[in-house]
Amino acid sequence: MTEQQIKTFDVIFEGTGTSSGKMRNDIHVVWPMMQETFDLATDEGPFHGGDGTAPPPLALFTAALTGCLMTQIRAFAKRLRTPIGTVTVKARLHWTGEQTGNDPYVTAPVGFDLDIDLDSSASKEEQLSLIAAAKKGCFIETTLMQGLAVGHRIKVNDDWHAA
Amino acid sequence: MTEQQIKTFDVIFEGTGTSSGKMRNDIHVVWPMMQETFDLATDEGPFHGGDGTAPPPLALFTAALTGCLMTQIRAFAKRLRTPIGTVTVKARLHWTGEQTGNDPYVTAPVGFDLDIDLDSSASKEEQLSLIAAAKKGCFIETTLMQGLAVGHRIKVNDDWHAA
Repeated sequence: MTEQQIKTFDVIFEGTGTSSGKMRNDIHVVWPMMQETFDLATDEGPFHGGDGTAPPPLALFTAALTGCLMTQIRAFAKRLRTPIGTVTVKARLHWTGEQTGNDPYVTAPVGFDLDIDLDSSASKEEQLSLIAAAKKGCFIETTLMQGLAVGHRIKVNDDWHAA
Repeated sequence: MTEQQIKTFDVIFEGTGTSSGKMRNDIHVVWPMMQETFDLATDEGPFHGGDGTAPPPLALFTAALTGCLMTQIRAFAKRLRTPIGTVTVKARLHWTGEQTGNDPYVTAPVGFDLDIDLDSSASKEEQLSLIAAAKKGCFIETTLMQGLAVGHRIKVNDDWHAA
């Protein structure tokens, strides 16, 4: 009996964000391993002091989470030989904020829910297996599941300090 | 002495993703409270079986996280009266994957790091206070910090099942 080979790989994305306009941020994203770059931006609407020239960060986040799971569903359907048709995912992401007086508000997630239709002739069990694999393979889902303290440093007078 | 009023508010984003092309996903994002909509897309490059018509989900995620913190830095700098200039944030997001044979791979986050330059004349302490507030106010950062099990349902023969 042949032992199956276990491979590990790293995925690293880098971004450089620069503030511009009232609330707009231009973010140059690099995927070094693939030598690919992506110029993205966020903005806020007038209600939040911006000019509405780009989607707000949470719209990008909603698309990223939805697209991540959908991508892995399609990639893994081939490997698992599960027939699927047009994949449709409806996402609902709910956060809350709490503000005292005019202090900066404090935020927290309430719940994220994804409803999935695979348009598939496969059995319920096969479809559930595919979704289980896609959840484990989606980098964003496993990050949310595991949780992560983001590291921060701030540059003051040419020195870097933990923030 | 007047007690400061505590307000809470909800932020809800909805997305509908539809698969198209080889690996492309079109995601229509709605921010119901603001009556705003955003048409976004993800794709993969040819190496991953796509046509490269849109950024991959992790590029959107990198921009979302970077833009979220930058937005709160600017919003809260006004409230805290901390002078800032052009904000620059360099982000590095690192994940790993593990694959056995040709099975679907399993992913995990390794570490996300954000290096921040506020171009500010404020003291180190003031700048650190601003970053601390922005971290608590950034919906994506607090979601990562707290962690969250995304809920999933799948539609099979017109019935919804937990997945």
